[in-house]
Amino acid sequence: MTSSELDVVAIGDAIVDVIATCDDAFLDEHRLPKGSMQLLSTSAADALYAAMGPAREISGGSAANSMAGAAALGLRAAFIGQVANDQLGDIFAHDMRSLGVQFETAPLAEGPPTGRCLILVTPDAQRTMNTCPGASHELTVRALDEHLIRSAAVTFLEGYLWGPQSPRAAMLEAARMAHAAARTVAFTLSESLCIAGRREGVMGMIDSGVIDLLFGNEHEVRHLTGCGDLRDCLSALAPKVGTLVVTRGAQGAIAVANGERVEVPAAPVQNIVDTTGAGDLFAAGFIAGRCRGRDLRGCLEAGSVAAAEVISHFGARPEADLRELVSL
Amino acid sequence: MTSSELDVVAIGDAIVDVIATCDDAFLDEHRLPKGSMQLLSTSAADALYAAMGPAREISGGSAANSMAGAAALGLRAAFIGQVANDQLGDIFAHDMRSLGVQFETAPLAEGPPTGRCLILVTPDAQRTMNTCPGASHELTVRALDEHLIRSAAVTFLEGYLWGPQSPRAAMLEAARMAHAAARTVAFTLSESLCIAGRREGVMGMIDSGVIDLLFGNEHEVRHLTGCGDLRDCLSALAPKVGTLVVTRGAQGAIAVANGERVEVPAAPVQNIVDTTGAGDLFAAGFIAGRCRGRDLRGCLEAGSVAAAEVISHFGARPEADLRELVSL
Repeated sequence: MTSSELDVVAIGDAIVDVIATCDDAFLDEHRLPKGSMQLLSTSAADALYAAMGPAREISGGSAANSMAGAAALGLRAAFIGQVANDQLGDIFAHDMRSLGVQFETAPLAEGPPTGRCLILVTPDAQRTMNTCPGASHELTVRALDEHLIRSAAVTFLEGYLWGPQSPRAAMLEAARMAHAAARTVAFTLSESLCIAGRREGVMGMIDSGVIDLLFGNEHEVRHLTGCGDLRDCLSALAPKVGTLVVTRGAQGAIAVANGERVEVPAAPVQNIVDTTGAGDLFAAGFIAGRCRGRDLRGCLEAGSVAAAEVISHFGARPEADLRELVSL
Repeated sequence: MTSSELDVVAIGDAIVDVIATCDDAFLDEHRLPKGSMQLLSTSAADALYAAMGPAREISGGSAANSMAGAAALGLRAAFIGQVANDQLGDIFAHDMRSLGVQFETAPLAEGPPTGRCLILVTPDAQRTMNTCPGASHELTVRALDEHLIRSAAVTFLEGYLWGPQSPRAAMLEAARMAHAAARTVAFTLSESLCIAGRREGVMGMIDSGVIDLLFGNEHEVRHLTGCGDLRDCLSALAPKVGTLVVTRGAQGAIAVANGERVEVPAAPVQNIVDTTGAGDLFAAGFIAGRCRGRDLRGCLEAGSVAAAEVISHFGARPEADLRELVSL
C-alpha cells in the first residue's frame, strides 16, 4: 500500500434536500410512515411537493453528507455522484466544492433532472424522507476515476445506491479498484435495503469479503441479519467485516473490531431540531478518527460529536466548526 | 370603494435567496460593503458564487417576503412577479402558494433564468446582498391582473423594482388601477434607489401623490430627502404621503399620519442570526395591523414583532407562527 493522496472518496446519491416542517396529521394524511424513506416517482413527488409547506433547499445525499462532514473535519475528501445539467445540479456541485470536497463527475447531458429528497420534519425532530432520485440513479462505471479511488485510504459506498442496477455495479467496481490498491472499503447500510430482494444482495456482498468497515443503525442491522437481539446481530456481522459500527440514536453507538467491543453514549445536544444526517455525520466522524489514527473509542466519540452537531439544526450538513468540536 | 376580496397584492422581485455565512475578510476581499445590496451580472454572480461557502436556498424577494409574512399573519395576499420556467422558478412558486399567497404570474418561456440573491451573512448577523435579478426584471404590464389589483385593499410596490424600466411601468400602471378603485397604494423604499438617477424618479412619484403609505429605513429616507436630520426627513415626506413609516433597526420605528407621530421601540430578540428581511416583515406586520383596523401604534407594534421573528433565524420569511406572536 502506498501512502494516500486522499483520505476518503465516497460514491453516493447526489441530491438536494427540500426541507419543510409538518405535523403528524400531514404524515398520516399522505400515508407516510414517520422516520421512513420512500422512493417517489416524479408525479408522486410533484403531488407531495404541492401539498408541502414552504421549504428550504440544502444539498444532501447520504454519502455526500458524510463527505461534507469529512471535509469539515479536515480530511481530504472526494465524491462521485450523478447530477443533471440544471440549477439543482449546480447547487449540489457548488456546495460540495465550496467545502473543499473534490467533485468532478460530469453532469448528465440529458435524462432525468437532479435528484431531490422531500424531507418532512415533525415537531419531535423526526425526519420522513421522500426521494425522487432523478439523475442520481443514472450513475455508471464510467463515472469512476480509478486513479482517484486508488489514491484514497477509504472508499465509502452508500446503501441507498445499492438498489438501482447501474450504480450498484459502479460501487462494486469501485470496491474492486480500492482493494486492488490495498485500500479500505466502507459501506453504510440504509433503510432502502428493506425493499424486497436487497437484503440478500447486500448480505452476499458482505459474505464475500467486499466490506472492511460497515456502518448501520440498530434497525438496519436487525433487518440485515434477521436477528431480533442486538448482540446476535453483532455476532453475526462482526466476523464478516473488519470493523462493524452500529448507531443507536439517543442510546449511543457500538463498534466491534478484531474481537474488541466498545460502546459510547450519545453526545449531548441542547435542542434536537432535525435528525436528518445523524448517521451520515456519525460515519464522517468515525472515518476522520480512523484516518487520524484514533483507537476504536476515539473514532466512536468523534462520530458522536459530529452527529450531535448536525441534529441541532435543519439540514444534514454541519454548520458549526467541526474541527473545533472534534479534536483529531 | 367596495369591500375588498383581497387584503393586499404586491408587485416585486421573484427571487430565491442563496444564503451563506462568511467572515469580514471575505467581504473585504471581494470589495462588498457590508450591509449593502448590489446588482450583479451573470458572470459576476457566477464568480462570487464559486467563491462563497456552502449555501441554503430559501425563497426571497423584498415584497414577496412581505406577502409571506402577510399570509402568515392571516391576510388574504397575492403576489405578482416574474420567474423563469426553471427549477428555482418552481421553488419560488411553490413557496408562495404553500403559504396561501395567490401567485399566478406565468413563468417566462425564454430569456434569463429565475433571479437569485447571493446573501452573505457575517457573524454580527449583517447581511450583504448580491442580486442577479434574471427573469425578475423582465416583468411587464402584461403580468398585471386588473381585477386582482382592484379587489385588494392595499397594492404594495417594491423599490428594488423601480430601477428597470419595464417593471417600473408595470408598478405605475398597477398604482393607477388601484387608485381607480379607491384603494391604498403602498411603496417600500430600497437601497437601490441610491443608484444614480433613481432618487429623483421616486421623489417625483411621491410628489405626484401616487403613494399613500410609504415604508423606508432611516438611511433610505435620508438619501431620498437629502436631509441629514431624521426630523427634517419626516417633515419633508410626511405631508406627501398619507402614512409614513420609518424603521430604525435596534432603535425601533416611527410612523407619521395626519399630523400624528408615534414611536415604538424594537421588539426584543434573544439571538439575532440574520437581519435579512427585517424591513420586509416590518411592512407585513404594519399592513396586517392596518387591514385589521389597528391604530398607528398597534400597526407599528405588529411590524416590530414580525421583524423580530425573522431576524432570529436564517432566511427572510417567517418560521414561527406569526399569528400567535402578533394578536390582530
